[in-house]
Amino acid sequence: MEDMSEYADRHDYLSKLSDRAVLPDGFRVSTQTVSFFPAERAVSLPLEMNLSLIALDRPTESYAAVFTRNAFPGAPVKIGRRRLAAGKPVSGVLINNKISNVCAPGGEEDAEEILAVLGESLGVPGDSLFPASTGIIGWKLPKEAMKEAVPSLAAACGTGTVVSLAQAIMTTDLFPKVRSAAVGDGFITAVAKGAGMIEPNMATMLCFVMTDIAVSREELQNALAAAVEGSFNAISVDSDQSTSDTVLALSSGRKAAVPYEAFANALKGVCTALAEDIVRNGEGVQHVIKVRVAGAVDDADAKRAGKAVVNSPLVKTAVFGNDPNVGRLVSSLGDEYGNRGVPLDPQKVTVSLGQRVVFANGAFALDEESERYLSQYLKSRQINPTAARYPEHEKCVEIDITLGLGNGAATVTGADLTYDYVKENADYRS
Amino acid sequence: MEDMSEYADRHDYLSKLSDRAVLPDGFRVSTQTVSFFPAERAVSLPLEMNLSLIALDRPTESYAAVFTRNAFPGAPVKIGRRRLAAGKPVSGVLINNKISNVCAPGGEEDAEEILAVLGESLGVPGDSLFPASTGIIGWKLPKEAMKEAVPSLAAACGTGTVVSLAQAIMTTDLFPKVRSAAVGDGFITAVAKGAGMIEPNMATMLCFVMTDIAVSREELQNALAAAVEGSFNAISVDSDQSTSDTVLALSSGRKAAVPYEAFANALKGVCTALAEDIVRNGEGVQHVIKVRVAGAVDDADAKRAGKAVVNSPLVKTAVFGNDPNVGRLVSSLGDEYGNRGVPLDPQKVTVSLGQRVVFANGAFALDEESERYLSQYLKSRQINPTAARYPEHEKCVEIDITLGLGNGAATVTGADLTYDYVKENADYRS
Repeated sequence: MEDMSEYADRHDYLSKLSDRAVLPDGFRVSTQTVSFFPAERAVSLPLEMNLSLIALDRPTESYAAVFTRNAFPGAPVKIGRRRLAAGKPVSGVLINNKISNVCAPGGEEDAEEILAVLGESLGVPGDSLFPASTGIIGWKLPKEAMKEAVPSLAAACGTGTVVSLAQAIMTTDLFPKVRSAAVGDGFITAVAKGAGMIEPNMATMLCFVMTDIAVSREELQNALAAAVEGSFNAISVDSDQSTSDTVLALSSGRKAAVPYEAFANALKGVCTALAEDIVRNGEGVQHVIKVRVAGAVDDADAKRAGKAVVNSPLVKTAVFGNDPNVGRLVSSLGDEYGNRGVPLDPQKVTVSLGQRVVFANGAFALDEESERYLSQYLKSRQINPTAARYPEHEKCVEIDITLGLGNGAATVTGADLTYDYVKENADYRS
Repeated sequence: MEDMSEYADRHDYLSKLSDRAVLPDGFRVSTQTVSFFPAERAVSLPLEMNLSLIALDRPTESYAAVFTRNAFPGAPVKIGRRRLAAGKPVSGVLINNKISNVCAPGGEEDAEEILAVLGESLGVPGDSLFPASTGIIGWKLPKEAMKEAVPSLAAACGTGTVVSLAQAIMTTDLFPKVRSAAVGDGFITAVAKGAGMIEPNMATMLCFVMTDIAVSREELQNALAAAVEGSFNAISVDSDQSTSDTVLALSSGRKAAVPYEAFANALKGVCTALAEDIVRNGEGVQHVIKVRVAGAVDDADAKRAGKAVVNSPLVKTAVFGNDPNVGRLVSSLGDEYGNRGVPLDPQKVTVSLGQRVVFANGAFALDEESERYLSQYLKSRQINPTAARYPEHEKCVEIDITLGLGNGAATVTGADLTYDYVKENADYRS
């Protein structure tokens, strides 16, 4: 993966993205905007929905998917699970933003009806297409408007840029997310949508992986499951599943197979990079926070500890304010262990912020110099998302914790809590 | 308890508070402000700390306390636990805000030294006094300034209003919190401090209960533990324990004993009312949210479900925006059950907002009329804390959930997430 750690400006970011947004052989993409009036709310101007299509030149038997565990899965997730179980050849994916088609009356039927019309235009069965939706929960899809639009979406399908696809699937994302890796004679390229999915946020995460490397369905499923566990599940931690989270992988099989390990590693690299992009693109995020925990009871315990720190609203707001309020770090840890009744000895705990030890031997190590250093450190890790709406760098606020309980370790990535987060979410649907 | 549900303005609130802020017999109170420069941060102007004293005319053997479970308890909590274990007669409590004296080097020694000076002024042993602190974690108490101030604090002690005590112990609280109940020939009066303690917020909660009713130490401890469980623990749910949370009860024993049940019920009523005051006084709170869950596996399961909803940042921000985004309610429930692997059948779930059913039989029931109704409902439950900084009413946003899993039930109270919450917490220490 090339270095994408610094960007001069938004144009620079998009042009770097375009350079590496290689559409693998055997795929075509297109996007289109649809205007509609929702049934559930009176609006004076129509709402706009983006439709995106990923189509395979030839149906494939090599596809895989990982879906949300949420107890109220959306209609696209239910349909996707059925497709996966049926195992028939697959021709593509239709993605829409704006409405997630979750628990809306007749949601599955509506999606199938739209896919049938799209299938006709593509000359494939409707049930060879996956649906994917993100946006407002509970509202119905604007079925008629979508049915009207899909023929031209199918007709426009081409081998153009993947960046427009990555842009069209966004909701509150600040910028499009594309990662690609060369493998053997071909590529693995993936686009992702997700902003503020950090637990317990639950904004939907969608990721579509395209590859031209030949790979069996079973190997693709195994490689995808492993990649998701080490990437999207490592940033979002376990309990952050929206009703629609979906990671879908398709192979056109146009290029020679490579050893499984090489394929799986490349896929994991692509997913890990996208997962970090998603954190950085969280709603209103101004700092990405990476908590490394060591010396926990076991890895799961370490993950819970890291999560307790990175999800504490008081820690998140302090980081936003570039205020090194390290008391809150320690308090969030103490709350987690105290409540679980796991005896944690403060004497054995060390906490560092930006490589500076702030707590050791049961007491804080704070003075004016360290206050200045830590404030400056937090400022140096700040992203300014409002000025240019592009990621100026890929720096993180680094928190290291050792617990003295055992050998468990984990890294949990999260983000700060900002005015813009509240603003973005206070009336997301208007 | 008298009706305190509507207030014309701040003056009306304070005057109603004064009317009922009866200081039970045998107690005296005083407050004083201390200026100091902290050791840990360069400041151009001195910081101000309030000292508050609750003193008994005669030492008592009847006292009780409930402390935080946080694994990093503050020095006052450690000292308080020692006092409780030693069981010696108690003469009062010294409370300070601004600095919580948690894991600061020499924190226990400093607190004992200050109490010894105060004890001299009061003519009692220093170890007959409880300390209580709230504020910044990790910083040291301004010991010299405090030692200098306590003699005049002791001298000023009188039977004046409890409202000034309730005001002096505040940190980010919007207004003072006092509740009182007449019992037998005497009173139970309590003051509380806490703003935004809603899980996982962890702002410190302090509560001091004074009574002149004679009650044994054991009965007082039992009644207090039960009252805390049904009040402060019911609003803040289990995992929200700061490093300093303390509920302390003292009896002067000046009035005749009453039956245990009568005493315990009155104490629980006082604590429940204060707990609700604390939610309403949360940092930036504009809506109090009450989630009633029924049909859960058991009561603990119901509490977890209610907590998942009331602690979802997406639900909290939507309520702040008066946006009836009921999809987020359902998604937060589905996330909780999906992750725990408890099979929840969407067909059996009903969700109501403001007595209006929004989800039933596996689908949302949404239309323009219901959107309008729900928006209006949320607006009608909104508090405007910025205009007058007093609680204009005691209304809640009511969410009712039935799960169809069993007979478990619970009510969880929380609050919305607002700009002001972020602002308040982004640089709390400046």
